[in-house]
Amino acid sequence: MTRPITGRVGPGLRRTAGAPAPRRETAAEPGTVRIAVDLLGGDHAPAVVVDGALRACRADPALHLLLVGPAEDADAVLDALTPGDRCRVRTRSASVPPTRRAQTAGPTESGVRSAVLAVAEREADAAVSAGSTGATVTSAALGLGRWPGVRRPALAAVLPTAAGRVVLLDVGATVDPDAQTLAAHARLGSAYAHAVHGVAAPRVGLLTIGSERGKGDRLRRAVPALLAGADLPGGGRYAGLIEGVDVVRGGAADVAVTDGFTGNVLLKGLETAYALVGPPGAEGDRLPRAAVLLGVAGTVVVCHGAATGEDLAAGIAHAADLHRRRAVPAIAELANRTSSDRRSSDEVRYEQ
Amino acid sequence: MTRPITGRVGPGLRRTAGAPAPRRETAAEPGTVRIAVDLLGGDHAPAVVVDGALRACRADPALHLLLVGPAEDADAVLDALTPGDRCRVRTRSASVPPTRRAQTAGPTESGVRSAVLAVAEREADAAVSAGSTGATVTSAALGLGRWPGVRRPALAAVLPTAAGRVVLLDVGATVDPDAQTLAAHARLGSAYAHAVHGVAAPRVGLLTIGSERGKGDRLRRAVPALLAGADLPGGGRYAGLIEGVDVVRGGAADVAVTDGFTGNVLLKGLETAYALVGPPGAEGDRLPRAAVLLGVAGTVVVCHGAATGEDLAAGIAHAADLHRRRAVPAIAELANRTSSDRRSSDEVRYEQ
Repeated sequence: MTRPITGRVGPGLRRTAGAPAPRRETAAEPGTVRIAVDLLGGDHAPAVVVDGALRACRADPALHLLLVGPAEDADAVLDALTPGDRCRVRTRSASVPPTRRAQTAGPTESGVRSAVLAVAEREADAAVSAGSTGATVTSAALGLGRWPGVRRPALAAVLPTAAGRVVLLDVGATVDPDAQTLAAHARLGSAYAHAVHGVAAPRVGLLTIGSERGKGDRLRRAVPALLAGADLPGGGRYAGLIEGVDVVRGGAADVAVTDGFTGNVLLKGLETAYALVGPPGAEGDRLPRAAVLLGVAGTVVVCHGAATGEDLAAGIAHAADLHRRRAVPAIAELANRTSSDRRSSDEVRYEQ
Repeated sequence: MTRPITGRVGPGLRRTAGAPAPRRETAAEPGTVRIAVDLLGGDHAPAVVVDGALRACRADPALHLLLVGPAEDADAVLDALTPGDRCRVRTRSASVPPTRRAQTAGPTESGVRSAVLAVAEREADAAVSAGSTGATVTSAALGLGRWPGVRRPALAAVLPTAAGRVVLLDVGATVDPDAQTLAAHARLGSAYAHAVHGVAAPRVGLLTIGSERGKGDRLRRAVPALLAGADLPGGGRYAGLIEGVDVVRGGAADVAVTDGFTGNVLLKGLETAYALVGPPGAEGDRLPRAAVLLGVAGTVVVCHGAATGEDLAAGIAHAADLHRRRAVPAIAELANRTSSDRRSSDEVRYEQ
């Protein structure tokens, strides 16, 4: 195949397994975003990821995709591009140097580790994966470092409601949190709503099973005391207990805080419902079915394991949008400003 | 007011506070169901309960409603009945004898305790409340006794899916269960699907956040070992891990087992979504937004605190339907058959 494709790089520029990454700072045009896409992650990888990468490419010519995975799968994307496609696509082997390889990593986890590495090495501005959330969180925390004051990252999703949208977190990064972690995630959610959604003083609700005081399980009963009266980032404030109904109807809170288990179950339930019968509100169709990892020093977007090509494309577009808004550094900055007293020495300051 | 109303009883038959219940076995016509309705339970009580009782009355002339609450609220139902309404309505004071009054009970809890007492005293066949789930579970466990082998009751709701319906339990009775409780609830759910939905060999899934082995939080990781290969009631079998998507799309399991916290959040989210944008599948509109308490020796149906009059009417109809099918004794019998080796001496055998 020698069809000329805009931006296609020759095989000579492809990274090989274990080769050190060149620390080049490619002079990117304004608006350009370089996204590392994990071709190996997801239930239907690489087919849907290839499909998603192509869709993302065609929707946004200013994307530079770095396809991370086996050369033959990356070639499927390169070969499908036509002279009319103006985005740039490069490839990178999914393998990582043996010294960085975790004992427990399976073959499907090397994609996300390599994609995260591309961000750490400034080869990409953001990473996108539909692979194992656990592997993504671990790779991101180890490869990029965590924000000051954040011990447990949170995955933040955005759901449409009948009255605007709601930031739901955590949706799977931290499945057995303690009360302090939920309070820390409330701060991250408040910063997200302020920095990304432009909410002046975000109302942060604690998702539970009844809005009366004292309702909920053991974990939930311990959280309000930590949040009441707290100074949340972006001028946010704790808005009290909310319920499942509020995540759909909206209006009660801009942010819904919960543990990663409950958040993931609810998110997958509601997203599936909205896909089947239509979303509530006006902008439901425009929100991506993808979540951004908050608490690690880089932009990492996670799609569901069952993501479709359309979902992957939306996840890639979400990552590009977040990078263009400089959302992750802004959220880190906001969260850091009110958590300076909680900083611990083993954590990495976020820089970009 | 002396307007003649079919079935209206005179003030002389009204129970007064603390009076012992007559142990009469009213000769009921075939199809007749006597439902004790808690007029005090719910965010908008008594107005929506009065509305719900009237709707239920008019939809099913074979209902005999026992309205439990302040006389003036019960009178609102009695007075609104017309000569064309053929169901019978009696009233009962919400107060309970001081010896039965729990230390922690607030004024809104006396309704459900009195309604449950009416079932215990054979004055009613079932109780319906939109009050505090915690108070209902406690009242029912103390007033009616638990089934053999069941330490923690479960609330079972039924949700429409794109492929039939799914029994979701627990939706709020037991918010901090251990793995053994989830396994016990799997048995109750299997018995429900068999006895009420006529499923020959129910497939019981464990709701978690990824369908691969080992996914989930600490609690979820301990459950599959307890269920794999188990003999579930009604010929049921453990169908493995399921996700939020399966509770909406259906097809993977007839029963979804989860803790009362996650189940309640998911149920309220999905029900609100279906109310806003329409339910999936063919029978979504016909399923009540009410749950039945499994594990206690009587038919007790719980509506949401935010229930509407329509929801209350559906809850009353659900209770009547369950009683007519003799569902609760059948589920107790099925569950007991496979849990005889787990029976403990302090539990009460269910009889009806």
